[in-house]
Amino acid sequence: MAQPTVGIVMGSDSDMEVMSQVAAQLESFEIPYEMRIISAHRAPRLLFDYATSAAERGLKVIIAGAGAAAHLPGVIAGLTTLPVIGVPIQSGALNGVDALYSIAQMPPGVPVATVSINGARNAAVLAAQILSLADNELLSRLRDFKEKLSLDVQGKDAKLQRLGWRDYR
Amino acid sequence: MAQPTVGIVMGSDSDMEVMSQVAAQLESFEIPYEMRIISAHRAPRLLFDYATSAAERGLKVIIAGAGAAAHLPGVIAGLTTLPVIGVPIQSGALNGVDALYSIAQMPPGVPVATVSINGARNAAVLAAQILSLADNELLSRLRDFKEKLSLDVQGKDAKLQRLGWRDYR
Amino acid sequence: MAQPTVGIVMGSDSDMEVMSQVAAQLESFEIPYEMRIISAHRAPRLLFDYATSAAERGLKVIIAGAGAAAHLPGVIAGLTTLPVIGVPIQSGALNGVDALYSIAQMPPGVPVATVSINGARNAAVLAAQILSLADNELLSRLRDFKEKLSLDVQGKDAKLQRLGWRDYR
Amino acid sequence: MAQPTVGIVMGSDSDMEVMSQVAAQLESFEIPYEMRIISAHRAPRLLFDYATSAAERGLKVIIAGAGAAAHLPGVIAGLTTLPVIGVPIQSGALNGVDALYSIAQMPPGVPVATVSINGARNAAVLAAQILSLADNELLSRLRDFKEKLSLDVQGKDAKLQRLGWRDYR
Amino acid sequence: MAQPTVGIVMGSDSDMEVMSQVAAQLESFEIPYEMRIISAHRAPRLLFDYATSAAERGLKVIIAGAGAAAHLPGVIAGLTTLPVIGVPIQSGALNGVDALYSIAQMPPGVPVATVSINGARNAAVLAAQILSLADNELLSRLRDFKEKLSLDVQGKDAKLQRLGWRDYR
Amino acid sequence: MAQPTVGIVMGSDSDMEVMSQVAAQLESFEIPYEMRIISAHRAPRLLFDYATSAAERGLKVIIAGAGAAAHLPGVIAGLTTLPVIGVPIQSGALNGVDALYSIAQMPPGVPVATVSINGARNAAVLAAQILSLADNELLSRLRDFKEKLSLDVQGKDAKLQRLGWRDYR
Amino acid sequence: MAQPTVGIVMGSDSDMEVMSQVAAQLESFEIPYEMRIISAHRAPRLLFDYATSAAERGLKVIIAGAGAAAHLPGVIAGLTTLPVIGVPIQSGALNGVDALYSIAQMPPGVPVATVSINGARNAAVLAAQILSLADNELLSRLRDFKEKLSLDVQGKDAKLQRLGWRDYR
Amino acid sequence: MAQPTVGIVMGSDSDMEVMSQVAAQLESFEIPYEMRIISAHRAPRLLFDYATSAAERGLKVIIAGAGAAAHLPGVIAGLTTLPVIGVPIQSGALNGVDALYSIAQMPPGVPVATVSINGARNAAVLAAQILSLADNELLSRLRDFKEKLSLDVQGKDAKLQRLGWRDYR
Repeated sequence: MAQPTVGIVMGSDSDMEVMSQVAAQLESFEIPYEMRIISAHRAPRLLFDYATSAAERGLKVIIAGAGAAAHLPGVIAGLTTLPVIGVPIQSGALNGVDALYSIAQMPPGVPVATVSINGARNAAVLAAQILSLADNELLSRLRDFKEKLSLDVQGKDAKLQRLGWRDYR
Repeated sequence: MAQPTVGIVMGSDSDMEVMSQVAAQLESFEIPYEMRIISAHRAPRLLFDYATSAAERGLKVIIAGAGAAAHLPGVIAGLTTLPVIGVPIQSGALNGVDALYSIAQMPPGVPVATVSINGARNAAVLAAQILSLADNELLSRLRDFKEKLSLDVQGKDAKLQRLGWRDYR
Repeated sequence: MAQPTVGIVMGSDSDMEVMSQVAAQLESFEIPYEMRIISAHRAPRLLFDYATSAAERGLKVIIAGAGAAAHLPGVIAGLTTLPVIGVPIQSGALNGVDALYSIAQMPPGVPVATVSINGARNAAVLAAQILSLADNELLSRLRDFKEKLSLDVQGKDAKLQRLGWRDYR
Repeated sequence: MAQPTVGIVMGSDSDMEVMSQVAAQLESFEIPYEMRIISAHRAPRLLFDYATSAAERGLKVIIAGAGAAAHLPGVIAGLTTLPVIGVPIQSGALNGVDALYSIAQMPPGVPVATVSINGARNAAVLAAQILSLADNELLSRLRDFKEKLSLDVQGKDAKLQRLGWRDYR
Repeated sequence: MAQPTVGIVMGSDSDMEVMSQVAAQLESFEIPYEMRIISAHRAPRLLFDYATSAAERGLKVIIAGAGAAAHLPGVIAGLTTLPVIGVPIQSGALNGVDALYSIAQMPPGVPVATVSINGARNAAVLAAQILSLADNELLSRLRDFKEKLSLDVQGKDAKLQRLGWRDYR
Repeated sequence: MAQPTVGIVMGSDSDMEVMSQVAAQLESFEIPYEMRIISAHRAPRLLFDYATSAAERGLKVIIAGAGAAAHLPGVIAGLTTLPVIGVPIQSGALNGVDALYSIAQMPPGVPVATVSINGARNAAVLAAQILSLADNELLSRLRDFKEKLSLDVQGKDAKLQRLGWRDYR
Repeated sequence: MAQPTVGIVMGSDSDMEVMSQVAAQLESFEIPYEMRIISAHRAPRLLFDYATSAAERGLKVIIAGAGAAAHLPGVIAGLTTLPVIGVPIQSGALNGVDALYSIAQMPPGVPVATVSINGARNAAVLAAQILSLADNELLSRLRDFKEKLSLDVQGKDAKLQRLGWRDYR
Repeated sequence: MAQPTVGIVMGSDSDMEVMSQVAAQLESFEIPYEMRIISAHRAPRLLFDYATSAAERGLKVIIAGAGAAAHLPGVIAGLTTLPVIGVPIQSGALNGVDALYSIAQMPPGVPVATVSINGARNAAVLAAQILSLADNELLSRLRDFKEKLSLDVQGKDAKLQRLGWRDYR
């Protein structure tokens, strides 16, 4: 695989079911990535090294997923000038609203680009949008992707008109 | 001013007090921008034209602020491949939690990079981080910005050690 | 079927299980309708055309269902003078509270008539109430409907008095 | 004044500051209305009589505002086939979220068309949209209203382009 | 059965699984009751008659359960001087928080004694506490009930000390 | 003053502004009461003694107000068979929703009759409703109170009809 | 077993599934403990005796778990100078957010050290951190525990690098 | 001042008004402390050094206050075996509920002892309770503190009995 331009990070392998959707979506855009399990609380030294060296290792965007207290994306954002995309993960009693608040409500000067709860696919699309600013081939794939989104909807609508809702289901 | 690379959009001038912080912060990074008042609900045709032509007019990032139902950032995101940063604005009875949900919880395929409620400054920093991927001078200014954030905190801590908390206040 | 007077719109076929209840309820009132899958974010041009031409095509009311960011009803409302009824759909981590806020909290000048979360049947009843203002036959069916609601409750109460709660269940 | 077609109801005069915006907006559409203070809990007999006789007295739409437990719109909706528009009013410790839930979450068969918290103006616009289905002059005024909304936004944008944001404020 | 002193009311038989716990608990206190299905929205005339005649028919306490908009307890409270106990029922997307707010947040002058979400048993205990103020035999049964609650906990603790937690489960 | 039948308890004098409304309302019903400041956390022994002796000292109802963690009403309810009415008090960052949950969500067997946030007046009305079951003079005063509530609303409505809303305000 | 230094308390055996994780985690640190079922509402006298005698019986820390109204930890904290750790337990309609608020929002002077909802393991770790201040052997075990947490994450990351995410799952 | 045993940390001097209450309360217990401004996001290296060296520098407890995303207490907890007490600070649109969730909902193995929103005084009391386990003089001061809490309440109650509530206010 080519030199990764996106780093996918999660703090625990319990987040992998969601975060593997980032990887799958990046692959569909042919964006090389690396995926790591590094915890902000349980392996802080490793995270420190990972985030501070990310830019020089060639990463352009970091996508971090976390549930509950969900400090991972924000801690990374404090350690790099790369754009950091945060994926709040639905887990536990508060169902991800805790993660959404913790990832979005960052203090002045240290933003995290927050997507929807469990919005792993969208994190990958956002990374593609960012990278496509300097990559015309990727921009072209991204346009195809958006076109396909539209065609899918149109196809479903056509099917609905053809079958009616009782047979559609 | 140079050709704008960031478009700042709001749906109403009631959002300008918050959104002007985006402009001020972009200026500190020497990032050229344009600022527009275009409503998703009250001027949808104009918004349609604005968003679909944004990339060809040279914009790289769009920052949209909105309160309450806050559809503006998401509607723009449906009309362009540019990264769209959404600023939930604190207003009305729900205090911005409605805007946060409406901006962050976008459907698959159409992300909005959500920052904190009233996080206008951070939207500008995030735009700078994205643009700095292909602009070394901006990257240098961004590093200075982060360094200054750190020095400010250190300066306050030094003052606290010197004065004690009773005199600090 | 007669010329539709109600347009039922959803952004994704994942909403069809709920939104088909609108159709079924409208049928019971003998109100002709059309049902479409058109996304505000993935097929915005189509939605633009659909909503701006709705009145001239004979529609009187539009019922739009959406979950999560749930921009669909509001975007339609910005494009037509027809009354738009919004159905917040329960989905994802926030369970529909995001959709409720996004649909109800519309800005001044552009209302959406919001019903309960998953309140698809009620959206149809509300449409019938609106249409019955100029349709005495429909008004008569609506009165029968309300009478039947009352009789159903009375029937259940009578059964409860007859059987007692232990046997009722 | 002409025979009222819209009934504005509130349970307490503490809601009049918000609900008088309904009246003002209806007047701008030249829609005749009546305004009443009738409480669901403190004057239930009067409310019963008011709501059950509303249609035969010529009303077409009822707009009811209420805060906190906010039962008024729903109770009226149980007593008439007229469309009932509910305005959740911001008041007390829960800031209107209690009223929003209580008005929107009506049971099957008895909808209330809920607008935003304190959305009194929008309730009037929605009533106008409903009444315009059978009133071409009103439809024309409604189109002017929507056009003016758009022109206002465009005017503000033009002013912003002329002055820049520093002078705009 | 003796003349009922407690009226149990629900608006729909979907609430009977919860509300039958009221009946069972009242039976354990030997408190005669009646149970009715009467909807505030679908059978308002019946509810009006039921609530206004409750005191003269010998009822002392009314226990009303409702989910979602949950207007039933409050509407009854507006129609009688009897104490009304409200049971918020867990249902739908908001899981009962809508019902809790709608039942508890009553306006000045018209209280509803709200118990916990799904707290049907506790509604019966509260009714027993109220009735025991003028019924020494019931007071004695209530004291036995509270004593038994305490002994149950003590018995479980004793078992835990004997078995340890691994075997207790 | 006569032998108190209602005990008003609060944990701190910061709650007195709200809880004095209980006293004023009870006085209007001529219900004798006592008012105490006893904290569940800071004076638990005193609270223990107060609650366990309340019934034998002649109290019939205890009304306890508390904000934030708001354990006071529930702790009292565990120590007596008297009905306990809880008043959640609006205070601190969570604005009383913490107190509402803590007072309403009592475990099986130990109910607290919860009124609205800051619903001190309603707590007194509820106590009057309970006491009126065995006190016909009080019942008569309570009926006058409810009648007056209704007349007040009617008076305001009459004034509104006379003046119109512009002059009413 | 040695003299207990930690008391684990719950109000009902329905909390044992969660609270037994406290015990298991304490055992892994070789911290002697006792576990009791004592309810604040159903056995208040026993709780009073338990908490007031805890320090003299040799306990150093009390860990109390509770759901819903969740008064147990706070009531204990009012009766002892020992540090009290509260575990909000996920249960009922509000899913533990009620318990979190009730345990965390204690009034001035009477803190409860609140951990996450269902955070029973963490309550034990916190107790170990407190006890390790005066117990070097425990401190050593605690360091091993933290080291192991880190090694576990590193092991998972190594496995992910070796297998890739498709095979990891 | 003696060698500090408590470290008070905040990320910004905007938190000092709240966090200085920690210092004042610790002084009343004669507990030596240090107070630092170190940001998890803006000065992560300094925080890393501070937290990893805290134990060897003689600190026994760390009290960290933070608002909004509020990562500070949790990040410190990942870097030390000392007990960390977190103070959620009320700020911004979400009023501190974001900070409460972010501080309390820590992942397994890394607890933060969370106190109430703005509960700075209580953080100091909790630290005193922890330190008093090995410091009998402090334990004595803590007992005096709790005794004084109780006497304050009793004094207020006595004043209320003497004056009545009308004169008390």
